[in-house]
Order: sequence, then C-alpha cells, then structure tokens
Amino acid sequence: MPGIYVAGVGCTRFGRLEAPLLALLAEAAQQALTDAGIEEPDLIVVGTMNPEEFTGDGTLAPLFASFLGRAHTPAFRVETGTSSGAAAFFAAASAIAGGFARTALVVAGEKMTGLATPRVAEILSRMIDPTERRYGATMPALAAIVTRAYARAHHLDPEDLALIPVKNHRNGARNPLAHFQAEITVEDVLGSRLIADPLRLYEVCPISDGAAATVLTAERRPVRVAGMGQGSDHVALRHRRSLTSFRATQEAARRAYAMAGLGPKAIQVAEVHDAFTPFELINMEDLGLAEAGKAVRALLNGETALEGRLPVNPSGGLKARGHPVGASGLAQIVEIVWQLRGQAGSRQVRESRVGLAQSIGGLSSVNWVTILARD
Amino acid sequence: MPGIYVAGVGCTRFGRLEAPLLALLAEAAQQALTDAGIEEPDLIVVGTMNPEEFTGDGTLAPLFASFLGRAHTPAFRVETGTSSGAAAFFAAASAIAGGFARTALVVAGEKMTGLATPRVAEILSRMIDPTERRYGATMPALAAIVTRAYARAHHLDPEDLALIPVKNHRNGARNPLAHFQAEITVEDVLGSRLIADPLRLYEVCPISDGAAATVLTAERRPVRVAGMGQGSDHVALRHRRSLTSFRATQEAARRAYAMAGLGPKAIQVAEVHDAFTPFELINMEDLGLAEAGKAVRALLNGETALEGRLPVNPSGGLKARGHPVGASGLAQIVEIVWQLRGQAGSRQVRESRVGLAQSIGGLSSVNWVTILARD
Repeated sequence: MPGIYVAGVGCTRFGRLEAPLLALLAEAAQQALTDAGIEEPDLIVVGTMNPEEFTGDGTLAPLFASFLGRAHTPAFRVETGTSSGAAAFFAAASAIAGGFARTALVVAGEKMTGLATPRVAEILSRMIDPTERRYGATMPALAAIVTRAYARAHHLDPEDLALIPVKNHRNGARNPLAHFQAEITVEDVLGSRLIADPLRLYEVCPISDGAAATVLTAERRPVRVAGMGQGSDHVALRHRRSLTSFRATQEAARRAYAMAGLGPKAIQVAEVHDAFTPFELINMEDLGLAEAGKAVRALLNGETALEGRLPVNPSGGLKARGHPVGASGLAQIVEIVWQLRGQAGSRQVRESRVGLAQSIGGLSSVNWVTILARD
Repeated sequence: MPGIYVAGVGCTRFGRLEAPLLALLAEAAQQALTDAGIEEPDLIVVGTMNPEEFTGDGTLAPLFASFLGRAHTPAFRVETGTSSGAAAFFAAASAIAGGFARTALVVAGEKMTGLATPRVAEILSRMIDPTERRYGATMPALAAIVTRAYARAHHLDPEDLALIPVKNHRNGARNPLAHFQAEITVEDVLGSRLIADPLRLYEVCPISDGAAATVLTAERRPVRVAGMGQGSDHVALRHRRSLTSFRATQEAARRAYAMAGLGPKAIQVAEVHDAFTPFELINMEDLGLAEAGKAVRALLNGETALEGRLPVNPSGGLKARGHPVGASGLAQIVEIVWQLRGQAGSRQVRESRVGLAQSIGGLSSVNWVTILARD
C-alpha cells in the first residue's frame, strides 16, 4: 500500500464529563495537530455513531470544523456504529492514498452521559436487526447469548472469564485517561449484579464521554499504517454461521494482514473490542492471536498482561478506559501509537514494532482491523 | 487523478412511497449492479443523512449489505447532511483510487414520509448552528434570509425567481422517476402559500422517499469521474462572509475543476441543488457557470432550459424530482451519467461529453462538486 503515516495522536480523558461533544473533539484534535506539528490539515474526517440522538446536533463534520476554527477545511463524517472511529481512520487513509489529501485530521468521539441509561440503551439498540429488536433483544442480551455459547463450547467457568475485566482494570488503573482507574478482583466481578445472564455488571463496558484524534500524512514519519481491513457480517445474529467466533473480525484481519504482508505472529501488542469482556477471547482467536478455544490459556498464563508475551488492551480496553462509542475505534489506534513510540507511561509494554487494533461495530456486523508499524 | 469510472447507475421513483428504506436502497443498487454487469462489488458505501431518526434503524451499512444478500461485503456509511450521497461517492472513489477496492457500490437514500412534517422539520433543523437553532431558525427561514439578500443585491423580482420552479417542473414532467410530474405556471408559484417570506411553497422542495446508486470501477468504461471537490463553510449563517454566494460551493468547484483540468466553460449539462429554488442561481454563479448576478439572464433567455445552451436540472432538480435528503447528491450524478450516455428519454439534452453535479449539505456548510466526462 502507499505510504501513510501517523504524524500525531490525541485523546481526552474518558468518563462522565462536563464538556460538550464539540469541545471534546476539539481537545483531542488540537493535541494530535500539535503532536504532528501540522497546523492545517487538507481534510477532516469525523467518526461518530449517533450525535443526532445523543446530543441533538447533526452534520457534525462542518459543525466540528467550524468549532475548531477551520470552517473552510473539507470535512465529512463516517459511521459504522460502535466502530465509527476506525472507519473514519480508513476513509481518511483512503483519501491520502488516492491522492485527494496530503494530510488528514481524523477525530472521533461521542457524548453519551447526558441521557438517562434507558434512552442510551434504546439508541444503541438501533444497531440490532429490526426483527430481533422487535422480539425484545438488547445489545447485552445478544452478547449474553454469544458468551453462553462460547463458554459452553470451550468449558469456561465464570471465574475464567472474570479474569478479563480484572486484567483490564489493572491496566486502566495505570491510564490517566481511563474512565475507571481502580483495580477490581474476581470476587468483585462475580459479586456484581447480573446484566444479562451470564454477563455481570463488571463484564460490560460503561457509558462514557470522550474523543480521540490522529493526524495522517503521506510524509514519512516513524509510525506507519501497515494494514487496514474491514469485515462485515449479517446484522441478524440468527443468520450467523457461528456464535462462538465473529466472521467480520476474521475477514477484516485477513485483509489487514495481507495488506501489511505479515501474520498474527508479528503482532506484539493489541487493543481489542471488549465492550462485553468475554469478547476479548473471541477476538484474539478471530485475529489468529490464539487458536480456537485457546485464548483463555494465554489469559490464565498471564501472556496478555502488560508484562506478558502479547499484551492485550494495555489501555484498559473499552471496559476500563470507557466506551464513548464513536471514539473507541480511534482511541485504540492512539494507544497503539503511544505503545509503539514508548510513550505509554506506567502501562508501557516492552519495546514493540508492530501493533494491532480491532474494533467491533454493532454486535460484530461491521468490524475493522488496523495494523501499525514502527520502522 | 487515477482512472475511476462509473460502470452502472440506478435510481428509484422518488415520492411518497410504500417501500421501506432498505428496499429502496436495494432497488437502486440492483439496477446499478445490473447496469454495470458487476455482481460482487468489493465495497459498499452507503450515504444517508439520518436513518436513525427517520426510520429507527442504525448501522445502515451492514444492515443494507445484509438485506442485499451481500452480508460479507465490506461496507461503511458516510454522512454530510443533505449532501451525503455525493460524500459517499467521494469516499468510494477514494477507496478505489487508493487501491483498497477495485469496484464499489455506492448507494444513497432516505425514507422521510413516515413521519409528520413537524418532526421532519425538527430532524432537518439539526443541520443548523445550535445557537441559531435556539433563536428559532428553521431551514426555510435561513434560506429565506439568503434569498432576500440575493434578490435585493441583484434587483430580482418574484416573477424572475418563479421561473426556476416552472423550468424544473417542466423537466420533471418528462422524468418518470420524479416526485412531481406536472408542469406549473408562474401564477401557480406566486399564488402558493408563503413558507418563509419571500419563499413560497412552490419554491421549496418536497419531503420525499427514494434512493439512487452507482457502481464505480477502476476498469475503463465510457463515463469517467473527471473531478471531485468538497468545500466547507461556517455552519452559522452569521459567521459567513457573504449571504449572496456560498463559499463552500466555490471551494468545491475550484478543487473539482483543478482535478479535472478544465473550467466552467467545459460544462455542458449540470444538476445543482435547488432545495430552495432561488439557490439555483446562486449555485450557477458559485460554479462559474454565470457571473455574479447574471445567472438570472441565462434563466430568462432560456439558456438553462432542456433545449438551451447549458441545461440546468434536466431531471427536474430537487424541486420536482424530489429530495430524499441522503439520496439527492447521488441522484444528481445518476442523471448526469444518463445524460452523457444519451439515455435520458424525453428530457435528453443535446449530445454532451462533460457534466457537473453540485450538492449542498446543511445550509451550504458542506458541499460537493462532481464532474463526469464521456471519453
């Protein structure tokens, strides 16, 4: 692929925040522009899931460009539900690769905590197949079906699965931007209330506000975009060929690895979509980072811990860093850039040259895999 | 720019339709795929403005891909308000130009008539600057301010402006896909009720359902994408440098002409955004198709009629063909392709090799210009 480089990154604190969406997007954007040493990008691409319903504002791309003081910079918005941030990154990279821009600011975020939780759940449920929605399906309910099938297929106990949020909270406790910065125990997880059997509160990501940004350029910089891939699948869970793996991730990974000219063995650090924490194991298997049914071993052996062979979700993941839906896909990429550059502070993994981010849209109907490399 | 070709096009009837959004999108898509002789595009890009609020469905990209029977084709959605269809076309063309896809299906549409008009107006108002919205601004009210300023600056009478919808209805009467297929008179326009002084009902586009589609490919075909450009401006009208021209169109046109290596004189047929019909004149001037204040002369002289020197809105425009918001930017491109191919039936203009489509997002805050050429 043509040379596309990440020149700068930025990310706000995630959590229940006072600032409105535009201010969050601008904070992340200014950080990324400053980090890049680029003042005037040729293009702005905004990733948000549903600002119209979360905040009441539409045409976010020009609204944000105006707010940033760059009203005359071309701008558009990309949306793929909860993976919108990664989609925006792809669209901006495409524009650069196609020669339509030299530099692009990608900014992604969401403001969710202004609404009551039932209304947030209603908005999120628009990602569910309409027929399944009519039968009363919610995102956690569908995730619970997947978790149950996966746990049964591979003989996993609730104690095994509880180690995922424990690990991710341990990482989040070292991330000053994380929504949750406190460690938790297996007992905390198993003692938390059921959300959708078998998923408990501490196995489900929080509702968060926040934004992330990257600046992309065609000029050589230390971190380059090595591969990108997207995979789609039936929105309706009942039409999937499997409940214990996500074809959308497998296809996205196949494309991203092919573009990068490398395979899963080359990945040294990964951010994966753990909005429902058991998905971390499914994602690792779909990405080829573990064999089917074997991801739990890597978890139990500590291989995916910060100091392990293949740290997964060093940021704390969606579970601990938080999940402002549009932001997450891009925040993962920002974390990988920090890790590759050795700028991740007390959650820094050992020196790494290749990292991967995997983002899920909906209940795994529109997923993205992005591979970054430090030359 | 790299060679990108329009291999196929499709468009549904526009109007108050029974079919749901997904069926409309699929109808247009199947037409375009059949027209292209391409069964399996590498990528699907969906342009919609706000399906979440208009229909209740989200993550439209995988939802549509599933509905089309192509659940495993990579897909994402692009949004720039009322110009989303043109934005989706750009994003798909970028992916091809960047080498990330060989063929792409672009599909754009909206289903608006399922809601009562006040609710539609509320959803559309999300494109207005939040402060101006709080002061009670609506889209027609802001368009009326622009119309008043433009008419005063150039000494235009209501009778002059009324000729625009008369012309566009005359064209629409020859378009079997148009929402309105009846001619109207100047008296009809001037006798219709005031919507926002000085704009009358027949100077404002209808609320419509519909969808359009194109198939893009890197393989040589008769119609190629010669140039594309985007321009942005302050969302807030009070921050604009002019009320009688749209900088967003001027910038988009400048970029598209530069990419195409040609100027306004080369344009032989144009589709421009006449959601509020006086904007047709402003658009012509911003596109360089007429000098400032002189577009009305071309209208009065019949130069922009079907049989004129430079036919504008041969389809009937947004006024007569209708304006399913997400669809319009792409439907314009489809019309230009039909005109360049000589397939426009009784509204066919004289043989043309270069055509232009101009789409406005919001109240001209995020506009696109697309130039197509037949080699």
